[in-house]
Amino acid sequence: MKKALSLARLGWGKTRPNPLVGAVIIKDGRIIADGYHHFYGGDHAEVDALKKIDFAAEDATMYVTLEPCSHYGKTPPCVEAIIKSKIKKVVVALEDPNPEVAGKGIKILRNHGIEVLTGILEEEAEELNEIFIKYITTLKPFCILKTAMTLDGKIAAYTGDSKWITDEDARAYVHHIRDRVAGIMVGITTVEKDDPLLNTRISNKKVSQPTRIIVDSKLRISLEAKVVKSAKDQKTIIATTDKASKEKTTQLIELGAQVLTVEEKNGQVDLEKLMVQLGKRKIDSVLLEGGGTLNFSALEARVVDKIMYFIAPKIIGGRDAITPVEGDGKALVKDAFMIEDISLKRFQKDILVEGYTKRR
Amino acid sequence: MKKALSLARLGWGKTRPNPLVGAVIIKDGRIIADGYHHFYGGDHAEVDALKKIDFAAEDATMYVTLEPCSHYGKTPPCVEAIIKSKIKKVVVALEDPNPEVAGKGIKILRNHGIEVLTGILEEEAEELNEIFIKYITTLKPFCILKTAMTLDGKIAAYTGDSKWITDEDARAYVHHIRDRVAGIMVGITTVEKDDPLLNTRISNKKVSQPTRIIVDSKLRISLEAKVVKSAKDQKTIIATTDKASKEKTTQLIELGAQVLTVEEKNGQVDLEKLMVQLGKRKIDSVLLEGGGTLNFSALEARVVDKIMYFIAPKIIGGRDAITPVEGDGKALVKDAFMIEDISLKRFQKDILVEGYTKRR
Repeated sequence: MKKALSLARLGWGKTRPNPLVGAVIIKDGRIIADGYHHFYGGDHAEVDALKKIDFAAEDATMYVTLEPCSHYGKTPPCVEAIIKSKIKKVVVALEDPNPEVAGKGIKILRNHGIEVLTGILEEEAEELNEIFIKYITTLKPFCILKTAMTLDGKIAAYTGDSKWITDEDARAYVHHIRDRVAGIMVGITTVEKDDPLLNTRISNKKVSQPTRIIVDSKLRISLEAKVVKSAKDQKTIIATTDKASKEKTTQLIELGAQVLTVEEKNGQVDLEKLMVQLGKRKIDSVLLEGGGTLNFSALEARVVDKIMYFIAPKIIGGRDAITPVEGDGKALVKDAFMIEDISLKRFQKDILVEGYTKRR
Repeated sequence: MKKALSLARLGWGKTRPNPLVGAVIIKDGRIIADGYHHFYGGDHAEVDALKKIDFAAEDATMYVTLEPCSHYGKTPPCVEAIIKSKIKKVVVALEDPNPEVAGKGIKILRNHGIEVLTGILEEEAEELNEIFIKYITTLKPFCILKTAMTLDGKIAAYTGDSKWITDEDARAYVHHIRDRVAGIMVGITTVEKDDPLLNTRISNKKVSQPTRIIVDSKLRISLEAKVVKSAKDQKTIIATTDKASKEKTTQLIELGAQVLTVEEKNGQVDLEKLMVQLGKRKIDSVLLEGGGTLNFSALEARVVDKIMYFIAPKIIGGRDAITPVEGDGKALVKDAFMIEDISLKRFQKDILVEGYTKRR
């Protein structure tokens, strides 16, 4: 199953909004085939593996990271292929999180006399597909709040300088994450201050660029901003409210951007409603890289699922330096947003703290 | 040697300004005696162990975490006891860091035909006695900047509320550290805001309380502050400049506090000079628990040796919330204070990041 999970990861960034799935087929103690879901629309992992042995797997055991599907989608159902191949036993890490189909594939296999075991390395499989699970069960994107700060909690010096908080290896990892998500979200203040491109840059890899999502309640964005000027090359959604000027909206659309009018809440884009709209546009995941104001609003709106805090071992100081989460803030420590399931990753110098805002 | 290092730790908090030392004596593959330096003025580890076997250790090997002393101090030199016991071989983790005596003990042992090996688990021994090493080589206290912050870099909410950032187990660990240091230092703002007692509280253990050091350039401190009112029970040094009123100074002295007049730098207590003065008063170590202003000044003055950042997995937000290092701050990220040799410790929920401002 560990190998199946590793294989699943090879589809990173290319399967969305499908899950990452891997499969390994074992007979007489040795691997006779393996496979994974390569890209959205391509063969599922089970079929990818079975094809290699021409669907001849009599008495073999299949290890698969996700319950085999039982419905016709882009491809015929995997359970049919498994039954046809005469596999004897199927070991599943995670049952299908889609409540409408959960257990159906397993039931069909069992009805055909195939032994099915479930729950093997379930946690790893869950983590691997946390985006898919959130999206399929809520139709809202899985939202990761990512920030890079100094050890004393600053994302920029009092002068605004922020180049660079973290080292190259940590920044490369951010691009690896950007490669996985469907969208990158920032606030208008970040666009005004940093004028970022918000694209994914990975050397030696062709990546599909994420959709850029700019939260801009009053449509302040400059037509000269890089994200606007490159909107014809990389999908750009500007989320605003009905306070936005019609003229500016038209100009932005002409430049290739999409302008999404969202209900407002306290004069700002209602982030919960925005997430619903993004979900409808098949955006299964959002990397929130916004400044302190948007980050606090997102936490307040409870749309954040996961946090990724890169911490650089340096201290910059400054009562006016910029911190990762600002806004009004909570009045009492006891009311703070609690982060659970903390895990730590170490880069050459930097530390990554990952956690979840609530149990999935 | 691992056992000797563990034994050394048993003297935690009681040997200062002496080092923590442990010794194990092995003969024919088994431990025949062990010992450690229990408290300042008591037997050194080598003698503590040798006494248990009545100084009869013919052909045995001694593992000791620090080079045996060769001078008469509070006790006779350990090398004499070792020679007398007819030990054959001595394995030393760390040579004496005191430049005036380094290598002397080893030389004497070798001159008496005893084989001496050095450098075994040297790094661990160095870390164990980082306080002693700094103090003996510079006569200035080893200074640890300790802070407890939320994941978004806040030590208090915008309201000033800070109860509690970290959990009980992390706070208990702070008292364990307080038990090791000779002094706890805060700025006057912290006294005014929190009115802390700055004592060490460890259940079921009698501890020797650290000296409290309040940095108060203009002697603003209230005579009603807890640290002043309890100054007769726990040593309290108020570091000020000659701007301090003579009358207030007299009042504070009458209440039991010591008032230390230090040269000033930019209108504030010159922290470098203060450290020299504290060193002269046999304070080998200072735990700096001060607010953001003092923390930044201490880093700027390069008096900080080690940092201990407790990070709680919670997010509080707030553009006006309080951060661990404030002051003016550095203008550019590239000029930040770099922290090296990072290590991580995990508590039940909280994370401790430890590191050093520069290589020792």
